[in-house]
Amino acid sequence: MLIVAERINATRRSIARAMLERDSRCLAREARKQAEAGADLIDVNAASDPTAEVENLRWAVEVLQESTDLPLCIDSASTEGLRAALELVQADDVMLNSVNGEPQRMRDVLPIAAEHNARLVGLLMDEHGLPEGVEDRLRVAEKIVREADRAGIGLARLYIDPCIRPLSTSPDQVEAALESVRRVMAEFPGIHTTVGLSNISFGLPYRSILNRAFLTLLITAGLDCAILDPTERDVMATVHAAEALCGKDEWCMDYIGAERAGVLRPKDD
Amino acid sequence: MLIVAERINATRRSIARAMLERDSRCLAREARKQAEAGADLIDVNAASDPTAEVENLRWAVEVLQESTDLPLCIDSASTEGLRAALELVQADDVMLNSVNGEPQRMRDVLPIAAEHNARLVGLLMDEHGLPEGVEDRLRVAEKIVREADRAGIGLARLYIDPCIRPLSTSPDQVEAALESVRRVMAEFPGIHTTVGLSNISFGLPYRSILNRAFLTLLITAGLDCAILDPTERDVMATVHAAEALCGKDEWCMDYIGAERAGVLRPKDD
Repeated sequence: MLIVAERINATRRSIARAMLERDSRCLAREARKQAEAGADLIDVNAASDPTAEVENLRWAVEVLQESTDLPLCIDSASTEGLRAALELVQADDVMLNSVNGEPQRMRDVLPIAAEHNARLVGLLMDEHGLPEGVEDRLRVAEKIVREADRAGIGLARLYIDPCIRPLSTSPDQVEAALESVRRVMAEFPGIHTTVGLSNISFGLPYRSILNRAFLTLLITAGLDCAILDPTERDVMATVHAAEALCGKDEWCMDYIGAERAGVLRPKDD
Repeated sequence: MLIVAERINATRRSIARAMLERDSRCLAREARKQAEAGADLIDVNAASDPTAEVENLRWAVEVLQESTDLPLCIDSASTEGLRAALELVQADDVMLNSVNGEPQRMRDVLPIAAEHNARLVGLLMDEHGLPEGVEDRLRVAEKIVREADRAGIGLARLYIDPCIRPLSTSPDQVEAALESVRRVMAEFPGIHTTVGLSNISFGLPYRSILNRAFLTLLITAGLDCAILDPTERDVMATVHAAEALCGKDEWCMDYIGAERAGVLRPKDD
């Protein structure tokens, strides 16, 4: 399971302020905390202020490269933002978040991703918006896979995201999202699937318990990457528990190892 | 979701001691705690000392009837224990835990359950032990359903238990258990399914996180009853979260209601 750590996101007030004030220690601290908690990549999003996004993103990328060895996930809806951030990235391994099935967006983002040999998140939405049914989502997936392939990006670099909406407003989407993960993993062997986990619980109380329950279902459906907050220890423990339950961790060796390494919460029973 | 509260079980040292010392306040306290946490029935098991089981069970049933209005679940592998406890039960609603597909056990237990119009847990095991595959489990379920029907016990009173074994020793059983729940619910409309949840995590660290992840999968598969510890607030919150995710709680009204009633853990985010 590839963990993309979500905390360095300017929609969080503390991060927006850190970017405004060029508080590099705040970003470094967030990166370190997430790395220690088990992150594989550090997502960086500077989208709070559109007029300053590109500048803030470049600053953040430079700060993060000095403070962590983990690869970055450049998270921007702006092609200019992605391109400007990538210019600064020194590591071979980088993820772009994201492309979708919109023709113009694919024309913009796919060449950049191909040029940098980047991992690429592909959202299952396009110029018609967010499809409701599984078949429509699969058609968007096919489109992204086809165009990515033409641009020279193989399945192993693609992370398809079924675009989770809040349970409170879209109660019927859960099975469609799970089925999309199952189908994408089955129909494109070697591809990856990912979600922005916490969207599911937006607007609801005690969000973490919903996030964890949904993560369990997603992992059992085949999900192999998630954008989440690894400093929530119960969420990381849920990753290990779900992988043990769905047969990805024979004899629970990883689960027991995670407990010994102190990754699980201290024993409560 | 019917919650059968598991804490009054003599395999727990404090309960064994309470039974030995006739500490009725301990049992009353456990019953009250579990009722407040959301239990629908109180399981009572006195199986620590076989020579005293019947006597202890009768004592416990009398104590519990004085201390809680909730119906009891009489939990005993001994027919004599079930019969002796039932003699004392005053409520119309009672559950027996359990029968299985063994012919002698069915001959012993089904008439007692029918006579008392009891709910009845039916374990998917028989004289040949615990079947491995789903088809073999389904054959045991059919046998129990058929014989229960002959004894006058309808589907609505039957709670089929796929018999969860520890994940640490039986890593391959999870999908079979989930599929058994799906198949039993689909093939016998009106029947119920239940599990002794905590068996899954026996021998593993941080048991609660595995229990909750497994419970999420089971509820999504159709499980509508579980024997668990309702005083673990995260477990009860998981019940509400899983039901919201799998479409059993439209617009999350029960989930939000549970939070307002203070059933979920205090907001952590």
